[in-house]
Amino acid sequence: MSDLRYRTISFLSDYGLRDESVGVVKSVIKSVAPSVDIVDVTHDIRRHDTRAGGLALARAAQYLNPGVVLAVVDPGVGTSRRAIAIEVGDGQSVLVGPDNGLLAPAVALVGGATRAIELDNAVYHVPAPGPTFGGRDIFGPCAAHLCAGVPLLELGNEISTATLMPGVLPVGGREGDVVEGEILWIDHFGNLQLNLDPDDLDGLDGPLMLRSGEVARRIDRVTTFDQIGPSNVGLLVDSYGLLSIAIARGSAAEELGLKESDSVQLGLAEVEPGVSTPVELGKRS
Amino acid sequence: MSDLRYRTISFLSDYGLRDESVGVVKSVIKSVAPSVDIVDVTHDIRRHDTRAGGLALARAAQYLNPGVVLAVVDPGVGTSRRAIAIEVGDGQSVLVGPDNGLLAPAVALVGGATRAIELDNAVYHVPAPGPTFGGRDIFGPCAAHLCAGVPLLELGNEISTATLMPGVLPVGGREGDVVEGEILWIDHFGNLQLNLDPDDLDGLDGPLMLRSGEVARRIDRVTTFDQIGPSNVGLLVDSYGLLSIAIARGSAAEELGLKESDSVQLGLAEVEPGVSTPVELGKRS
Amino acid sequence: MSDLRYRTISFLSDYGLRDESVGVVKSVIKSVAPSVDIVDVTHDIRRHDTRAGGLALARAAQYLNPGVVLAVVDPGVGTSRRAIAIEVGDGQSVLVGPDNGLLAPAVALVGGATRAIELDNAVYHVPAPGPTFGGRDIFGPCAAHLCAGVPLLELGNEISTATLMPGVLPVGGREGDVVEGEILWIDHFGNLQLNLDPDDLDGLDGPLMLRSGEVARRIDRVTTFDQIGPSNVGLLVDSYGLLSIAIARGSAAEELGLKESDSVQLGLAEVEPGVSTPVELGKRS
Repeated sequence: MSDLRYRTISFLSDYGLRDESVGVVKSVIKSVAPSVDIVDVTHDIRRHDTRAGGLALARAAQYLNPGVVLAVVDPGVGTSRRAIAIEVGDGQSVLVGPDNGLLAPAVALVGGATRAIELDNAVYHVPAPGPTFGGRDIFGPCAAHLCAGVPLLELGNEISTATLMPGVLPVGGREGDVVEGEILWIDHFGNLQLNLDPDDLDGLDGPLMLRSGEVARRIDRVTTFDQIGPSNVGLLVDSYGLLSIAIARGSAAEELGLKESDSVQLGLAEVEPGVSTPVELGKRS
Repeated sequence: MSDLRYRTISFLSDYGLRDESVGVVKSVIKSVAPSVDIVDVTHDIRRHDTRAGGLALARAAQYLNPGVVLAVVDPGVGTSRRAIAIEVGDGQSVLVGPDNGLLAPAVALVGGATRAIELDNAVYHVPAPGPTFGGRDIFGPCAAHLCAGVPLLELGNEISTATLMPGVLPVGGREGDVVEGEILWIDHFGNLQLNLDPDDLDGLDGPLMLRSGEVARRIDRVTTFDQIGPSNVGLLVDSYGLLSIAIARGSAAEELGLKESDSVQLGLAEVEPGVSTPVELGKRS
Repeated sequence: MSDLRYRTISFLSDYGLRDESVGVVKSVIKSVAPSVDIVDVTHDIRRHDTRAGGLALARAAQYLNPGVVLAVVDPGVGTSRRAIAIEVGDGQSVLVGPDNGLLAPAVALVGGATRAIELDNAVYHVPAPGPTFGGRDIFGPCAAHLCAGVPLLELGNEISTATLMPGVLPVGGREGDVVEGEILWIDHFGNLQLNLDPDDLDGLDGPLMLRSGEVARRIDRVTTFDQIGPSNVGLLVDSYGLLSIAIARGSAAEELGLKESDSVQLGLAEVEPGVSTPVELGKRS
């Protein structure tokens, strides 16, 4: 292993696993750097969904091993969008992919870019008979050459980090006692991760309501999933430190009919004195 | 590789491959034990289905490499169920996962537990900002530390193996000439694996009937798939040594409309002299 | 790594990832050759579809690392079809799998077989309690023994390469100004790869029509995806060097209602003077 500058490539794409694409990219990588360790982050990002790919990479970022991150979700393949490599931590890691915002959230989370280049030195590409297959012909081989010790600036010309396409990380807001956010991600279990963290609820003491479109549900503020009552909706800090909406042993996404990117509002539940029926027993949406 | 106590982690979960969860767990493992070899058993166990997970692990068990088995199907994450490690073969392998019966069938198949601990030493966990993500925060890092040489008893307090949650391995039975079983597993090709082995049919010589709900089909006893007649149902010893129901180049599950956990009966076909229509030509269920 | 004759096994199958089959085969391989590097080509070949498996392997072939290729799509498992190993490049690589045409296109692409054997030396198989699970019991262990240095001829008796089952690679044709081909493959993005290369269009200068069943669409000859007009159909040389049908940022397969193996015709568009409605604005199929 001592022959490598970086021993790990963490690989995310929207290629899926139904055909040989991911395997071909890995084979190209291994042909350049045989002993590199490739860790699949995921290859099931929705086709061309750079927002979802960027968020998955951001969630994973703090846990990935130092080394090269190879991320390919690239609706603009074959257009003039740039192929880039972004160095972070003064060389601790390098992110390789298209300049379309995909890498930006992860780069921001690990402290920002220290240098960036365009991958325009064709010496390190695999020649293609037709349009490039980005992962196989440019991103994969460049990631492998970085692991094998090729200096960053040898792979292409330096570009200003100020010219990199920013990522679209939606920011939550607050109007009086109402917190506005959106659903960043629906996990495998149907929990709804919001773009809000616990501090966003400061001062909102008391029972909360969740509103989104026609959904209006009172929510339990809990710290673990099993504190959520059988037919209730819970709000908790999730395992990434963000606020999430969940139900007990079921899918909040299905139960509430919500999807990624939907806007949500969290506000204090109105308590009408004299009305004895608790809000959470009302007809379900 | 000589720096590792165990060089292999065999990893099974219900996390799916659609998001970055499996990749994050692997990254955490590699951050502790960079040269460990992770073999994916499968990550597509049905969500929270500890029965299916336990059976898949049991089918795989005799083929897995000595080392650490990391298995996470954990409907009770965040509740009081214990996180455990079970040593088998006096340390030849260690199974790491939740104490909910998931590990039990595999442990039984490889000779039973020689020691067990609760993974309660937080020094070896990854701190989570919210509820734990079991694979990432506890099971994965503990599995990695075992590979890196941390002694089992350093990861937590020893517990009695008698207190471990048993697995639910359904046992077949026999009443006279009728053998009662159930469908353990439907494989990728639609074959129905039963919880019966060839000995269970001792003394049942002659043509057999399969009954399950409204299904009643005469079956061919064969030793290879291609001995099954074109529209017949076959019974054979499968590649795991258990009895399986199959049809020729098709899915027995679809053909018969049966599913995992369904009860089945195998008994001698009644031969009614004078009735000339063979049973297997009757109306299909 | 220096202990291995071949360090890489490239593995393709139709086992899927929903159960433990692929993991079990890998475990068996690692038990024989612990330090071998297994690269998954894909495991999602349609069940028993040797044509699709052979084409995927052929597309990947030129990018795979020298070593062993393990390919299992085996509708005839348990019948008299032979289990084989085909040496190419005088030993640079060996392809292991069933003798049903699956390996043939890849073998042809890399220069043809230099030797072949039947895997009939049971010493190198894993004994099965019932019918063999090909990947686990024969193909996987034999691939691993090759990596570990067992000579090819030790694994079984040499057979004539002339007796190997040929692959079914459809060949395009031409009748006058009409080129006849078929859809080899629909990729993850819905592009339709044809069994035609750019030379097949020699002499066909001018606007082209694509016909297939009831589909009749004028096509743009382009070199990159983004040159295809918003509602047009494009024809380009794809990243494998073959002609492909594509639409801009969408699925040509869905748009045109075509599927793998469908026949297509490419011919000159008839230009009828006086008719002003361009063909491509006609009612869509």
